[in-house]
Amino acid sequence: MASSDTALVISAHAADFVWRCGGAIALHQKQGVAVTVACLSYGERGESARLWKEGKTLAEVKSVRRKEAEAAAQALDVHDIRFFDLGDYPLDLGTGAQERMVDLIRAVQPRFMLTHSQYDPYNTDHMRTTEFVLTCRMIAQAWGHDPGAQVVGAPQLYLFEPHQTEQMGWKPDTFLDITEVWDKKRAAIECMQGQHHLWDYYTNVAQNRANHFRRNSGGQAGGRAAQYAEAFQSVFPRTVDAL
Amino acid sequence: MASSDTALVISAHAADFVWRCGGAIALHQKQGVAVTVACLSYGERGESARLWKEGKTLAEVKSVRRKEAEAAAQALDVHDIRFFDLGDYPLDLGTGAQERMVDLIRAVQPRFMLTHSQYDPYNTDHMRTTEFVLTCRMIAQAWGHDPGAQVVGAPQLYLFEPHQTEQMGWKPDTFLDITEVWDKKRAAIECMQGQHHLWDYYTNVAQNRANHFRRNSGGQAGGRAAQYAEAFQSVFPRTVDAL
Amino acid sequence: MASSDTALVISAHAADFVWRCGGAIALHQKQGVAVTVACLSYGERGESARLWKEGKTLAEVKSVRRKEAEAAAQALDVHDIRFFDLGDYPLDLGTGAQERMVDLIRAVQPRFMLTHSQYDPYNTDHMRTTEFVLTCRMIAQAWGHDPGAQVVGAPQLYLFEPHQTEQMGWKPDTFLDITEVWDKKRAAIECMQGQHHLWDYYTNVAQNRANHFRRNSGGQAGGRAAQYAEAFQSVFPRTVDAL
Amino acid sequence: MASSDTALVISAHAADFVWRCGGAIALHQKQGVAVTVACLSYGERGESARLWKEGKTLAEVKSVRRKEAEAAAQALDVHDIRFFDLGDYPLDLGTGAQERMVDLIRAVQPRFMLTHSQYDPYNTDHMRTTEFVLTCRMIAQAWGHDPGAQVVGAPQLYLFEPHQTEQMGWKPDTFLDITEVWDKKRAAIECMQGQHHLWDYYTNVAQNRANHFRRNSGGQAGGRAAQYAEAFQSVFPRTVDAL
Amino acid sequence: MASSDTALVISAHAADFVWRCGGAIALHQKQGVAVTVACLSYGERGESARLWKEGKTLAEVKSVRRKEAEAAAQALDVHDIRFFDLGDYPLDLGTGAQERMVDLIRAVQPRFMLTHSQYDPYNTDHMRTTEFVLTCRMIAQAWGHDPGAQVVGAPQLYLFEPHQTEQMGWKPDTFLDITEVWDKKRAAIECMQGQHHLWDYYTNVAQNRANHFRRNSGGQAGGRAAQYAEAFQSVFPRTVDAL
Amino acid sequence: MASSDTALVISAHAADFVWRCGGAIALHQKQGVAVTVACLSYGERGESARLWKEGKTLAEVKSVRRKEAEAAAQALDVHDIRFFDLGDYPLDLGTGAQERMVDLIRAVQPRFMLTHSQYDPYNTDHMRTTEFVLTCRMIAQAWGHDPGAQVVGAPQLYLFEPHQTEQMGWKPDTFLDITEVWDKKRAAIECMQGQHHLWDYYTNVAQNRANHFRRNSGGQAGGRAAQYAEAFQSVFPRTVDAL
Repeated sequence: MASSDTALVISAHAADFVWRCGGAIALHQKQGVAVTVACLSYGERGESARLWKEGKTLAEVKSVRRKEAEAAAQALDVHDIRFFDLGDYPLDLGTGAQERMVDLIRAVQPRFMLTHSQYDPYNTDHMRTTEFVLTCRMIAQAWGHDPGAQVVGAPQLYLFEPHQTEQMGWKPDTFLDITEVWDKKRAAIECMQGQHHLWDYYTNVAQNRANHFRRNSGGQAGGRAAQYAEAFQSVFPRTVDAL
Repeated sequence: MASSDTALVISAHAADFVWRCGGAIALHQKQGVAVTVACLSYGERGESARLWKEGKTLAEVKSVRRKEAEAAAQALDVHDIRFFDLGDYPLDLGTGAQERMVDLIRAVQPRFMLTHSQYDPYNTDHMRTTEFVLTCRMIAQAWGHDPGAQVVGAPQLYLFEPHQTEQMGWKPDTFLDITEVWDKKRAAIECMQGQHHLWDYYTNVAQNRANHFRRNSGGQAGGRAAQYAEAFQSVFPRTVDAL
Repeated sequence: MASSDTALVISAHAADFVWRCGGAIALHQKQGVAVTVACLSYGERGESARLWKEGKTLAEVKSVRRKEAEAAAQALDVHDIRFFDLGDYPLDLGTGAQERMVDLIRAVQPRFMLTHSQYDPYNTDHMRTTEFVLTCRMIAQAWGHDPGAQVVGAPQLYLFEPHQTEQMGWKPDTFLDITEVWDKKRAAIECMQGQHHLWDYYTNVAQNRANHFRRNSGGQAGGRAAQYAEAFQSVFPRTVDAL
Repeated sequence: MASSDTALVISAHAADFVWRCGGAIALHQKQGVAVTVACLSYGERGESARLWKEGKTLAEVKSVRRKEAEAAAQALDVHDIRFFDLGDYPLDLGTGAQERMVDLIRAVQPRFMLTHSQYDPYNTDHMRTTEFVLTCRMIAQAWGHDPGAQVVGAPQLYLFEPHQTEQMGWKPDTFLDITEVWDKKRAAIECMQGQHHLWDYYTNVAQNRANHFRRNSGGQAGGRAAQYAEAFQSVFPRTVDAL
Repeated sequence: MASSDTALVISAHAADFVWRCGGAIALHQKQGVAVTVACLSYGERGESARLWKEGKTLAEVKSVRRKEAEAAAQALDVHDIRFFDLGDYPLDLGTGAQERMVDLIRAVQPRFMLTHSQYDPYNTDHMRTTEFVLTCRMIAQAWGHDPGAQVVGAPQLYLFEPHQTEQMGWKPDTFLDITEVWDKKRAAIECMQGQHHLWDYYTNVAQNRANHFRRNSGGQAGGRAAQYAEAFQSVFPRTVDAL
Repeated sequence: MASSDTALVISAHAADFVWRCGGAIALHQKQGVAVTVACLSYGERGESARLWKEGKTLAEVKSVRRKEAEAAAQALDVHDIRFFDLGDYPLDLGTGAQERMVDLIRAVQPRFMLTHSQYDPYNTDHMRTTEFVLTCRMIAQAWGHDPGAQVVGAPQLYLFEPHQTEQMGWKPDTFLDITEVWDKKRAAIECMQGQHHLWDYYTNVAQNRANHFRRNSGGQAGGRAAQYAEAFQSVFPRTVDAL
């Protein structure tokens, strides 16, 4: 499955990848990076309040959420989307999930990965996902795991923006200009029919992150005129040829 | 003075720039970046024990230290070196020093700057330099400071490697491959006649940072074969077009 | 079971609720808040050394500890006490425990909850309890968990005072004056026959926390004359109509 | 000058009080709290780029900035505004400034105070202001400073929202619903003619903080319907009669 | 002045050394360590509320406080006590103070030093003292400062216990059994006539720190039976021949 | 099995104990401390890349790694080495492993223990081992776990040096001079045939830690002339009779 340049997004619930890194996905796809999205759950129990209030069954909720996620993925030109269907609130991240994720990481051979923050007292699914991803990345690097299969190198792991960033101890070190793909991100956001209250919230976030982009790229002297941006925290240091 | 691509190193004492970012200096010079080094003091009182034991006077100590720094700068192909002669242990970072540094920052118009860690209980000169640099960077950005002069944008500030990194709370996020200029750095190190005990220390550091470079650029799957590296901590987030 | 104003205490071992928030329990009961206490274990293996030295069996130890906890709860006017009997050192916080706790949270509909610190290298039961509580709170909020049952809102989670606070990274932000119910707390403390060495310890704590209460409510200008207090750390921010 | 209930805002530059706590000011004024604002500088050098580009003199810049701040204060119904005129980039926080601030704190006798974050690598004026305020608060509490004058008690110090919160290590613990005074805050914001690029930025902030208010006051179960909010970090613990 | 084994305590205000390390002083004196105490101020303005309420003059307040400190020092068998008389709230830690402190450190040649915590939002005199001590220690080590005078080695700097430890971010790593000199410490405490409200407070602290001593020296298996203890945080790592 | 003075090392993978605390092991053995090493796995899958590349089977890899570890243990004069064979990448730290480790801790009755850092995003086996050890230590202290068996006291837990220390948030507080046993450590290192790239790396580490030892034991005034050292972080505070 691996193309020459690839990335992998691990989203605890079906919509997380849209709000938190939809711009990064669309932008990299446009740049020729094949982006795979893995949704560990549909967010069916914990993030589908409206559907439950309407009296939907579990199967119906999952179906609706899957369709929304697929539509959003399409809006973002996602290369591939996988649904692990592990259940949510809480996620079941047992051995089976681990094997599947390791296989996916190896199949994708991502240059970089994206997932949640390392702490989230509101939503322990998020922080457990991050620890799960770190473990799976480690296993995927091991020559003795499924010997003969291709191991992965040392892909960067970016932590995308959580809700209420300061409560999560999340500190971005990388701002990405997503102006040219903002329309795609907004379209993907609008696929999330049950979370209408977040549409403008994440539009505001993107506009304000663009202010940060401008400020960090030039200050009062005039930075780059980004209109929409996303922010990320790196887990690992960078290796460079020039500062 | 500003060339098209420039950098500015602020070194509390005369030798700091050699141990801590000599590789970065030589490498960027080779890449066409004009690197200016500002030594706030000669380290005459606090880092010249051997000379004092030999009975040198203050003027003699400063002269020896200046010559060593100049020789090291030459070995590293430094574009320009400035000696602020502020005294050390402690540095006198009063208003005059501030004005001079702001003027230098504006004259150089650095794309990025390098200085010390934010905390150092062994050497408060180091941590005060860092706060001083942050203040001077802020003033250099102000349109109302010396109106009409050219303000600076938002240059990154890298914190170079302190001695005993863990005690300083310093965490590198950027590893730079300095293999191709290692000979220059070692030559510059050997200009520091009074600190012979640190020659092998910082050679060990460079070798081990190269191990970290290799690991972070490829893990067990085989990263880039750096033999010598330097590590830096960024103060400000990056603004990028791709992850 | 829910009364109009309710609170829920989750105590890893039988006696924790007494030392750490006995005053808060008695005070809120007096104010008309129905306080439910959930003891995850009796502390039978890890906090009953005296009984084991006397040669008691496991069943006997648990029985003694339960009676002490019930007596203490009565002294504090606890509305309801539940024993989950999950075993201790370590607690078994598997799926069954989770389901029971979610059901209890929903049944109580607490305005606020109290539990342990987020870190405790001496006693991992404590820190695992806190993560367990965060997960159960999240599940209890999910409309899709046991659909049709009443979800909970966003109850504050207070972390009560651990032993050796500084080692746990615990920082109190809320001091509660328990002077008017101190007699009840001391009576509850004295129910803990096997931990006599802690009676005066926690009396000292209450007196010194009252000093902090006075200082933070008025400084040298004269604060409120609390004689006994308890301290708590909030996990979530407060929402207010006035500062 | 002290009324029965009072508050004091210390703003490093003329406009900070508007963006960062304009809602809190207007709301408390409406509730009968007399709010005094102290602007340590006009932000004349560092935050008036547009005026300098227009070729204004220092006196003109200060005059324009003062008028804007006065207009904003009026829009917010500020009880009293003081201009310390200490210069900016950097502020001169020497002994004279300290005496004046201590006198003002004592004259106002604030129940609570508001100022900047404790860390700000972009703007050291901000973090120095916070340390300055802590020192002045301490002196104002001392019975031996200007003996016979009225000392202050232990007013809470709230840190208002900085720009790029995560870079400042600022973590809010208190969300204030400012919906009913939003129009006043927006009117005050629009007094800042030279910083038009921040008008929508801080409107976005207020809307998104309201989302956090709703979430923390009720979660998916439905919190309080705040439309605009501000966030604050407390320096000191609270002393309460009930949790 | 230096004896064969020496220590130096730097106390921001006259009484700090009594509450915070009186036991350590008396114990080490008993063990043959000559302990010098430097009081930077008498705490005349900020910590003598009772005397000011009685209408004392500044000279009288300082005289009373000095006598109390001298009496306490005598009770603790202090080898030498020095009063720097720098004023308090705030301390004046300018160049003159620095020179005197460096000279004292060199004269004493301490094996270890004790001073305040690194952060204290209630009392900035405390945290400025700690930074001052770090700077003076650095200067005292410099061969080029007052060349020919004896430099100091690398004395450990212990941070003694602040009031409200958790608010100061202070974390003790060393517990000292002071049981055998408790009577001396209590006698010294009782010399502080104007701070009667702290006598029992610090007795409680000593008893509870003894509980921590017992727990860390043996746990439930039975540690050393300390009855009174003090706690300290080390700034620098230890160098040892065995773990 | 317990001798009069004992220590216990818990190593996630077979080679960790060599790189990270081989000097401490050999030194304490020489001092009469019986040191037991528990290897939780052989590092067969994750740290044996060379063997897998050679086409070895799992059984062969484990056998080779075991022999290397045994040879290294012999070079270090290890008292006893145990192989838990729990598998690696990831370790299986379930109930069975816990019981065995508790039994071993009780059998050894260590005065102190050594294990990994508390955080490691590169290798979650390491950080899970540390939490596992804390839990087992807690259980081993419980009088009610396997009643009648001898409980342990409160052994210090030292965290040995991880790879890329700053990324792990590891801060050493204790430096141990291993000069006199360096030859043994180097011999043990050379038993690790598959990790030749780390031989010089950890030699560099030992030399540079010796520089830190010298600096912390005497600074420029001349500390103890250690040539090789190891560094450790303590989890628990020390209890002492003198500073």
